[in-house]
Amino acid sequence: MSEIRRIAVLGGGAWGTALALVAARAGRDTVLWARDPATVAALNARGENPAYLPGLTLTPRLPATSDLAEAVTGADAVLLVTPAQTTRTMAAALSPLLAPGTPVVLCAKGIERDSGLLLTDVLGETLKAARPAILSGPSFATDVAAGLPTAVTVAATDGALADALSQALASPQFRPYAATDIAGVQIGGALKNVLAIACGAVAGKKWGASALAALTARGFAELTRLGLALGARRETLTGLSGLGDLVLTCASPQSRNFAFGIALGEGATVASLTEKGQKLAEGVFSAPVAVALGRKTGVDLPICEAVAAVLAGELDLDDALTRLMTRPLRRET
Amino acid sequence: MSEIRRIAVLGGGAWGTALALVAARAGRDTVLWARDPATVAALNARGENPAYLPGLTLTPRLPATSDLAEAVTGADAVLLVTPAQTTRTMAAALSPLLAPGTPVVLCAKGIERDSGLLLTDVLGETLKAARPAILSGPSFATDVAAGLPTAVTVAATDGALADALSQALASPQFRPYAATDIAGVQIGGALKNVLAIACGAVAGKKWGASALAALTARGFAELTRLGLALGARRETLTGLSGLGDLVLTCASPQSRNFAFGIALGEGATVASLTEKGQKLAEGVFSAPVAVALGRKTGVDLPICEAVAAVLAGELDLDDALTRLMTRPLRRET
Repeated sequence: MSEIRRIAVLGGGAWGTALALVAARAGRDTVLWARDPATVAALNARGENPAYLPGLTLTPRLPATSDLAEAVTGADAVLLVTPAQTTRTMAAALSPLLAPGTPVVLCAKGIERDSGLLLTDVLGETLKAARPAILSGPSFATDVAAGLPTAVTVAATDGALADALSQALASPQFRPYAATDIAGVQIGGALKNVLAIACGAVAGKKWGASALAALTARGFAELTRLGLALGARRETLTGLSGLGDLVLTCASPQSRNFAFGIALGEGATVASLTEKGQKLAEGVFSAPVAVALGRKTGVDLPICEAVAAVLAGELDLDDALTRLMTRPLRRET
Repeated sequence: MSEIRRIAVLGGGAWGTALALVAARAGRDTVLWARDPATVAALNARGENPAYLPGLTLTPRLPATSDLAEAVTGADAVLLVTPAQTTRTMAAALSPLLAPGTPVVLCAKGIERDSGLLLTDVLGETLKAARPAILSGPSFATDVAAGLPTAVTVAATDGALADALSQALASPQFRPYAATDIAGVQIGGALKNVLAIACGAVAGKKWGASALAALTARGFAELTRLGLALGARRETLTGLSGLGDLVLTCASPQSRNFAFGIALGEGATVASLTEKGQKLAEGVFSAPVAVALGRKTGVDLPICEAVAAVLAGELDLDDALTRLMTRPLRRET
């Protein structure tokens, strides 16, 4: 694997901007692609992303463009940081532009809604010439942009590619640990969003930190059961992209999925939270997919089932949470 | 195992009072023993524990006494809720008073400092006639006292005893899940206090939620490695008393150990935090014991090692945390 010198980061949101900073700080020749011309203009003229990281002067400055071909031409690796459900469209747009064998690092977390496919499988269908990889782990864009210490997982089936990406993005503040279990990384990243909705609902109900911790631990058990059934490695699920991200997501209103759950717990309706213009809570898409995967593999997923049923309007939230918190007193082990 | 009707709860702190409320709400005939006569008087006269649960009117009222013999006479089970390091003294005091075969449920978390023994082993040495059990899990006394939903583990080597204790303490709000892995429950409860000191220090440094989540996940990996090496079951370590309690303890300043870490991270000295009159942070005692157990079993415990070295004055906190957060970029899996 030759050295990764030039990196194109696709996505002008908070996370795309933060990851472009990571690449630039690690010494890579970095370009940021954003769809929105106003964002591109602000990045180029003032070194700011006023829509997504307001008030932060980006250090170093990031050259930005809204021309996808310009962004990816000559790139040794591409970081795809657009929302999970846009992966197929973006891959199709990239298809005529990318040099064969270019690593494409998926940085969104989720499962494709219509197909139930992992995002690497979407890439495999749409952009055959790319070499897929995944970046995932406990990382708020604001923490990363501010240069606070962060550790994530970078996974590719080809371990040498994972190592190369790890080295290309590493700095004392940002620690990307290489891994090869791409299924495990993606299942953890997708499931934690569903579990965060349930945990948020408990927080929104003001049921206390003890109840929240109990539900988080049970959520991790659920994530582990499904992950193992789908071929994930246990070390991946207990690692940064699994447990690490779950802990972050289920504890902080900065997480969209946790915030979505809080709003539900405080009495907001599903309809009001999912109408157009609301911030995307990826767990809404992943919940029914998780339930389907659970049924297919014969794995019991009571929390995901409850979230999916509440979102589908089939179960009252209070009933769902009470049932989760008063499960029969079977032996724990 | 005959039914548990009468329960003596020993310890007039916040947790002892909360657990006495649990027993009384579950319909048990409950008596609370407290060393401090003022606490006993306030409990009996006004149904309050002004020193530990100020402002809360206890429902139901709890009969209290400072006479240990009076408290335990006729008890079908004893809940020992005094600090971990007083277990041996309390057991010795109970020895002439308890009917043979009485279940004694240890509700403190820790390892005996001088011997390195689990608390059930301390009980086995000191109070041979008792039947030891453990209650542990994510549970702030204030949440439990307020009747918020809480789930914990109740473990005894004899599964029938664990089941009987579970049934005796259960209510819709308080869910005690029976288990038999007493070593696993105790190792989780002791280790999480050490890990919480490290997590608190990261929070005190204001290194952000992402760094805290990464350290929590690695802490869990450490807890799991040591637990498995010491014969714990994996399901126990991922359960309420392991991961559940770790998540709670490493996220909330209500936890003494996390608060201790925050103070360290903010610049307080170890000496100032451990002087007489300060609130007890059990992880201070458990850290060197964990390190010794790690060496004995050949298990790598970098976080516990760092905490123990900082507490012993052998390592600077900033160096320790930086080293933990910039570990070499080895493959994660």
